[in-house]
Amino acid sequence: MTDCLSRKVLRQVRPLGHDGLADVLIDGDRIAALLPAGSAPAELPTLADGDGRLMLLPALVESHIHFDKTLWGAPWRPNSSGPTRNHRIANEQSVLADFELPLAERAAPLIEHCVARGSLHFRSHVDVQPAFGLARIQEMLALRERYAHLVDMQLVAFPQAGLLTAPGTAELMEHALALGLEVVGGIDPAGIDRDPVRHLEAVFELAARFGRGVDIHLHDGGELGRFEIERIADMTEAHGLAGQVVISHAYALGAFGAEQLHALADRLAQLGISIMSCAPSHYMAPPLALLRSRGVNVCSGSDNVRDTWSPMGNGDMLDRARLIAMRFGWSRDEQLADAFDIVTRGGAKALGLGERYGVAPGCEANLLLLPARSIAEAVVSCPLERTVIRHGRVVARGGALTEDARPG
Amino acid sequence: MTDCLSRKVLRQVRPLGHDGLADVLIDGDRIAALLPAGSAPAELPTLADGDGRLMLLPALVESHIHFDKTLWGAPWRPNSSGPTRNHRIANEQSVLADFELPLAERAAPLIEHCVARGSLHFRSHVDVQPAFGLARIQEMLALRERYAHLVDMQLVAFPQAGLLTAPGTAELMEHALALGLEVVGGIDPAGIDRDPVRHLEAVFELAARFGRGVDIHLHDGGELGRFEIERIADMTEAHGLAGQVVISHAYALGAFGAEQLHALADRLAQLGISIMSCAPSHYMAPPLALLRSRGVNVCSGSDNVRDTWSPMGNGDMLDRARLIAMRFGWSRDEQLADAFDIVTRGGAKALGLGERYGVAPGCEANLLLLPARSIAEAVVSCPLERTVIRHGRVVARGGALTEDARPG
Repeated sequence: MTDCLSRKVLRQVRPLGHDGLADVLIDGDRIAALLPAGSAPAELPTLADGDGRLMLLPALVESHIHFDKTLWGAPWRPNSSGPTRNHRIANEQSVLADFELPLAERAAPLIEHCVARGSLHFRSHVDVQPAFGLARIQEMLALRERYAHLVDMQLVAFPQAGLLTAPGTAELMEHALALGLEVVGGIDPAGIDRDPVRHLEAVFELAARFGRGVDIHLHDGGELGRFEIERIADMTEAHGLAGQVVISHAYALGAFGAEQLHALADRLAQLGISIMSCAPSHYMAPPLALLRSRGVNVCSGSDNVRDTWSPMGNGDMLDRARLIAMRFGWSRDEQLADAFDIVTRGGAKALGLGERYGVAPGCEANLLLLPARSIAEAVVSCPLERTVIRHGRVVARGGALTEDARPG
Repeated sequence: MTDCLSRKVLRQVRPLGHDGLADVLIDGDRIAALLPAGSAPAELPTLADGDGRLMLLPALVESHIHFDKTLWGAPWRPNSSGPTRNHRIANEQSVLADFELPLAERAAPLIEHCVARGSLHFRSHVDVQPAFGLARIQEMLALRERYAHLVDMQLVAFPQAGLLTAPGTAELMEHALALGLEVVGGIDPAGIDRDPVRHLEAVFELAARFGRGVDIHLHDGGELGRFEIERIADMTEAHGLAGQVVISHAYALGAFGAEQLHALADRLAQLGISIMSCAPSHYMAPPLALLRSRGVNVCSGSDNVRDTWSPMGNGDMLDRARLIAMRFGWSRDEQLADAFDIVTRGGAKALGLGERYGVAPGCEANLLLLPARSIAEAVVSCPLERTVIRHGRVVARGGALTEDARPG
């Protein structure tokens, strides 16, 4: 429902790095039209004025974050974990067991920070561990509800400590899905549960039974990881889940040359399986350019943000695009635009946002304005002067939320 | 010469991440004393007040930058280079031959940006190429003179296109050194000049004759690069240049396991040869932690900043410390402090700043204030709220130079 009161204009902006300037007509929560600059009716209210200087981009997409783990709202805490993954799992359980701040007070300021940096679409994992019980799941659901006016957030039921081997996890996973978590998570079917096929069968069986997508954290490397990716493809096909499966990290794909990956990449593309990579610089990363050239959808995320696993993530997906480009030595404008595509359209596709995502008439007006002449320049310079628009309202400007970011 | 008029106080700051707060007495351009917070005489003028919230750090050290190449002051320009190093050399010559802005108008805003981010000590390479002639050298000398009140800048005579094979370069190198460039540069003795020993002999002969240090850009990889590093060590020893040689990049060191590097690392340490690494994430990088553990001095730099070689550098050495930590997966506080050490004390040692560098009585008051509780937090959060002090005057605050940054 729209009326003339709901119509506003973004004036004198440069959509997506095109050379020309535009006025963008917003109607309610949607983009109504892109018009030549200066041609939008002067009597309509101005939502923001780009002054010929600001580029108009779609909101950034954070495809892999752990809001439930972050210590963002708390004072600096030195990393206290031992070196292995099992140390980190135990360390997290111990630190969070009696942490000074509850989940909501840690995650809420991080969500707001991410919004101020331009992300409006999220996929957050939520640990499903008997050690945390239902509380963590319910706290994340409450937090999502609290921020529903500001962000889209998918939640993944994530069996961090294993699905088969941690007693009680399978039941808790069902409970989590019944409570509304949208995606069935998995983790290192060989590396953690030590039984890759049974782990994947359990994940896909849950996904089929609840009608949900799948997102597997796969750190298992080399031949082992590649075998697991092949089996994920098999099960995606068998369960008719094409287009609904994400493999996160997929370090194993970094261990092979292009020739060795063509057939597997083609299969991932055909099954609509997305690869999520943070483009880590201290591990082998999947060859994102090769995957994209074969038609595989690639998205990215901040992963651990200031938590007991790592202090490093910062919730800024434009900085992540810069890190992706640096990771692969991308320096040409079209390569820098590829990095930007990964943190926008790639994420939107992985999260199934469909036609409502983008800078085009009919899309939801979830937008980012920043000073740059080209997408390449935006990625390289990562300006902090950002104006963020959600459903046609300015919700953040200059690094802070606006009054319009309040529920209403 | 000091009198009471030259005394000022930094109040309520946290030096170097220690838990206690201090007042820092500045006398003229030097640190006179670190006192318990609240104990500095109230009648002395306040240079800055940390309010218990700001950490006091030494100014950052930029050990490897190419001010003469940057396009920083110009509008965004897509990278137009072909894929090889020779393409890049030819492309740079062609782009800069008739570029819209002279060197000073490109480099000056970058110098000011670097200062605003907290760097006050620089080593900049200056291309010595017949294609550019003396003009480029003289322009950089003039620029250094113009900013002498604001920054220390060493200049390296850098034979980008080869020292033996580009006719006229050797004579131009001598000219450059006679004009006052402090350091003799070299580049890929095998990869560019195709004659590693003659190239290094030419470099070291110039250094010995002019009484200068040496800085060799070494991208040559694997066994070849390691061989060249061994020969650099030989010549450092033969010419009595211990403590005055830097090997920049040294990718070759990333190709070997720890066991294979111990003897070479020990030799580099013994000869005071520093390794400069930008910690690239798309190449093999030298194993900085291993090198440091064997006593090798390590420093870092931004390298190419928005130039025809790469759009990626940003002149922010605190961001560089973060990139170093990410490159090696450093996440513990002591590792993050190592990354910070590389962009501060490591650089100061490589540049031979000696006792005047640091946060201690007697050191020059070249300082950085920023909001963080620990060095680790500073590296991870890279706050842009920075106050920069040069010779006891606040020269930058909140990303912009102050009035006190003017000459005088």
